[in-house]
Amino acid sequence: MTAFDDLMAHARETAALDNVMTRLGWDQRTMMPHGAAHLRSEELAALETVLHDRRTDPRIGDWLEAAEAPDAAGQAALRELRRSYARNTRVPARLAAELARVTAMGQEIWSQARRDDDVAAFLPVLRQVVALRREEAAALANGGDLYDALMQDYEPGASGAETAAMFDRMRPRLVALREATLARPAPEPLRGTFPQDAQLRIARKLAETFGYDFAHGRLDLTVHPFCAGHGEDVRITTRVVETEPFNCFYSTVHEVGHAAYEQGVDAAHALSPLGRGVSMGVHESQSRIYENQLGRSRAFTGWLFDQMHAEFGPLNLHDADAFYRAVNRVHAGYIRTEADEIHYNLHIMLRFDLERDLLRGELEADDLEDAWNTRFEADFGTPVDRPANGILQDVHWSAGLFGYFPTYTLGNVYAGCLFKAMQADLPELDADLARGDLSAPTGWLRERLQRFGALREPRATIEAACGFTPDEGPLLDYLEAKFGAL
Amino acid sequence: MTAFDDLMAHARETAALDNVMTRLGWDQRTMMPHGAAHLRSEELAALETVLHDRRTDPRIGDWLEAAEAPDAAGQAALRELRRSYARNTRVPARLAAELARVTAMGQEIWSQARRDDDVAAFLPVLRQVVALRREEAAALANGGDLYDALMQDYEPGASGAETAAMFDRMRPRLVALREATLARPAPEPLRGTFPQDAQLRIARKLAETFGYDFAHGRLDLTVHPFCAGHGEDVRITTRVVETEPFNCFYSTVHEVGHAAYEQGVDAAHALSPLGRGVSMGVHESQSRIYENQLGRSRAFTGWLFDQMHAEFGPLNLHDADAFYRAVNRVHAGYIRTEADEIHYNLHIMLRFDLERDLLRGELEADDLEDAWNTRFEADFGTPVDRPANGILQDVHWSAGLFGYFPTYTLGNVYAGCLFKAMQADLPELDADLARGDLSAPTGWLRERLQRFGALREPRATIEAACGFTPDEGPLLDYLEAKFGAL
Repeated sequence: MTAFDDLMAHARETAALDNVMTRLGWDQRTMMPHGAAHLRSEELAALETVLHDRRTDPRIGDWLEAAEAPDAAGQAALRELRRSYARNTRVPARLAAELARVTAMGQEIWSQARRDDDVAAFLPVLRQVVALRREEAAALANGGDLYDALMQDYEPGASGAETAAMFDRMRPRLVALREATLARPAPEPLRGTFPQDAQLRIARKLAETFGYDFAHGRLDLTVHPFCAGHGEDVRITTRVVETEPFNCFYSTVHEVGHAAYEQGVDAAHALSPLGRGVSMGVHESQSRIYENQLGRSRAFTGWLFDQMHAEFGPLNLHDADAFYRAVNRVHAGYIRTEADEIHYNLHIMLRFDLERDLLRGELEADDLEDAWNTRFEADFGTPVDRPANGILQDVHWSAGLFGYFPTYTLGNVYAGCLFKAMQADLPELDADLARGDLSAPTGWLRERLQRFGALREPRATIEAACGFTPDEGPLLDYLEAKFGAL
Repeated sequence: MTAFDDLMAHARETAALDNVMTRLGWDQRTMMPHGAAHLRSEELAALETVLHDRRTDPRIGDWLEAAEAPDAAGQAALRELRRSYARNTRVPARLAAELARVTAMGQEIWSQARRDDDVAAFLPVLRQVVALRREEAAALANGGDLYDALMQDYEPGASGAETAAMFDRMRPRLVALREATLARPAPEPLRGTFPQDAQLRIARKLAETFGYDFAHGRLDLTVHPFCAGHGEDVRITTRVVETEPFNCFYSTVHEVGHAAYEQGVDAAHALSPLGRGVSMGVHESQSRIYENQLGRSRAFTGWLFDQMHAEFGPLNLHDADAFYRAVNRVHAGYIRTEADEIHYNLHIMLRFDLERDLLRGELEADDLEDAWNTRFEADFGTPVDRPANGILQDVHWSAGLFGYFPTYTLGNVYAGCLFKAMQADLPELDADLARGDLSAPTGWLRERLQRFGALREPRATIEAACGFTPDEGPLLDYLEAKFGAL
C-alpha cells in the first residue's frame, strides 16, 4: 500500500460513514417518529464525533505529504482531500462542537420564532451563531476576507467581491424585466383542488420522465423537499398542497435535477472524493435547468397540461398557452421559495448583501430586521407584513449557513449557460420536450457534466460542459426572451 | 470524572452508534432501493469497524478495573460492560472480520439456495461458517463447552446441558398432546381474500390495543417481520398475505410484544447498558405472551372476530368459537414460523440437537441434511418434501447464529410462567380481553418486567416478575388445558 492507497482507503470509509449520516438526516425528515428527536440528537452527535475525528486524523496530513497521484482523477481526489483536511484542522474542536450545538438549537428556536412571528425570541441565538461563525471564519480565512472563507464550504473558488460584481451587472436588467412584466395584466392562475394521490402519481411520472432511477432511489413526502444521498442510493422528497399542484410537480422536478447529478456520477468514483456533486452552485445548476429551462418551457408545459387533463379532467385553464402563462406567473411575493424566475434572484441579492455585511461586522444581528424590511420594500415595492414573511422565512441563518445563498443564483447563471450550449447541440429539443421525451437533454447533461462528479473545480466543470467561459449573459438573455414574449 | 463516569460516557456514545446500525438494518429491510445493496454493505462494514474498535478500546479494560458503581444499576451496568468487553477482546480482529464477511455472504447464498432448493450450493459456505464459529467458540469458551460459549451471546447464563434436560422433560408431554390433538377432527380454517389496506387497518388497531406507542415507533411492511430499536424509537414491521390475515395480525402482535419491552424500559436507562431487553429468551417471552397467551386466547379472539366482521362482513366461520378454533388450528407443517403453539417447540428441539452436535464436532455440515430429514420424519410423522421446507427454511445457520434457536422455546417457557403469575394477579383478565382492553396485562408486564431493562440477569428477571423459580411446568399446563379443551 502506498500513501496514496492508504489515504484513499481511509477516505472511502469516511465517505461510507458520511453516507450513513445522510441517511439519518433523510430518516429524520421523512420517517422518524416525532417522539424520537431527543434520542436522534444523541445518535447524530455520536456519529458526528466519529466523522470529525476521522477528518482530522493526523495520518491524513502525513499521507497527503507523501501521496503521489497515479492519474488526473487521483490528483483531483488529492485536491478535495487537501481542502477538507485543511478546513477541518484549522477549526479548533471546541469551536466545532460549540457550533454544532448552537446551530442545532438555533434551528429549533427559529422554527418556533417563525411560527410565533417573534424576532425577539430568535435574536439571542442569532447573535451567538453570528459570533461563532465569525470566529470560525477568522480561523479559516488566514487573514483573508471572512465571508469568502465561509463561501468555500459551498462554492470552492468563489469570492464575495466577484459575486457582488456579477450581481451588480444582473440587477438593472432583472429590475427592468420585472417592471415590464408586472406592468402587463396578470395571467389567470390555476384554480381547483387536486387530491394528494393523483398529484403523487403525476410527480412519479415526472420523475421517471426526467430520468430518475427508482432502482437506486425513492420518492417520499416531507415538509421542505430535499434530495439526499450519492451513487447507488439517492432519495428525493416532495410535498403536496392540494390547491397548488405546481408546488408538488416543480419541487419534484427540482429534486430530480439534484438526484440526476448524484445518480449520474461515474460508478468508478463511488465513495471517492470525486463521487458527488462538486459544489452547491453546480448542483443547483442541475436542479434549476431541470425545473425551469426544461420543466417550465412552453414545449414541456404542453405535455404536462395533457397529463393534468388526463388525470383531473377539464381545468379552469382552457388551453396549453393559458396553462404555460399560469405556470410562469410573475408576482412580487414575500417568500423566496415560491418566487418566479425573475424575483428569485432579487431575493438572493437581498440576502447576500445582508449576510456579507453581517459576517464582516458592518451589520449586527440586532439591526438585521430593519435592514431586511427597508431593503425588501425598496426592491419589491411593498412593505414586509410580518417577520415570518421577512427575516424569519429561511432556515439558513439559524443553521449558520452564511455564504450559501449566492449559490442559488450562481446555479441559475450556470443553468443559463448550460441551456445555451444544450440548445446549440440539440436542434430537436422543443419537439422532444413537447412529447415528454427528456432523454436528449438529460443525456446531454449526464455526458457533459454529471458523470464527472467532482473531477474538475466548479467553474471548470461548467466551462468544460458548455465550451465557453460562464457568465450571467445567457441567463439574462433567456429570461428576457421568455418573459418578454409572455 | 471518575473511571465509572468515563466508562458510562463511552458506553453511551457506543450505544448511540449501535442504534444507528440498527436503523440502517431497519432501512435495508423496509425502505432501501433494491439497487443500493452493494453501497449499503460498504456503509455497514465501515460502521461495524467503528463499533468494533470502540468495543475493544483498551481504555475500557482500565476503566473497568478502576470503576466503582454508585448503586445497583451501576453494578448491573458494569456486569454488562464486563461481559461485552471480555467477549469482544477474546475474539481476534481477523476472525471477527472474517466472520462478518462470510456470514454476510452466507445469507446471500442461503437465500438463493432456498429459492432453488439447492443444498449443494449452500454446503460450501455452511462448512465455512461452522468452522469459523467453532474457532470463535473456542476463543470464547476458555476450555469450556463450545455450544455454551455461543449461547451466551443470546442468553447469558444459559447452558446446553440445562436446556437439553429441560427439553427432555418437555418432549413427552408435548408429543402426547400433539397426538391427542391431531386425533380429533381438524377445525374449519378461515377462507377468503382480505385486502391489504383492510388487514393493515386491523393490524394498526391491534398494535394500539396492545399498547404500542406510535409517537415512538412506526409500522411498515417487510418480507420477514421484525422489531428494531430501543427507547424512543422502536419500529415494528409486518407482512400481508391476502388469503392469510392471521399471518399479518399475529406477526404484528408478536412484534408489538418485542416493542413493548424496548419502549417500556425506564427512560433513566436510555443509552445505558441497561436500556434494552436483557436476553433473547426474555425478549421472546414478551412477544410470545402478547401473541399466544393473550392474543390467541378465547376471550381476545372473540374481540378480534368482531373486528374482522366489522371490516370484512360475514366470514365462513360463523361464530367466535369456530373463529377461536381456526386461530388455534394444530397441524404438523414443515415450517417453524407457521407452526402452532405445540409443534413450534418440537421444531426448536430438532434444531437445538442438530446445531449442538454440529458445534461440538459430533455432526458435520455435509451430514446435516440427512440428520434433519431423519429427525423430522421421526418427530412430525411425514418426510420432508423439499429442502426449502427442511434444512434450508431458516436464515439462522447461514448467518452463524448457532445457540439462538433454543431461546425461542425458552421464551415460550418464560411466557408460561409469566402468564401463570399474571392470571393470579388479574382475576378480571378474561373479561378485559373479551372487550379488547389490554391495559391490565400489558401494564402488569411493564411494571413487573419491561421497565427494568437489563437490570437483572435473564432468569432473575423472570423470577422477580413471577415471584417463583421459572420452569417448563406452567407452559405445559397451559398448553394441555388449552388444547385439551379445544
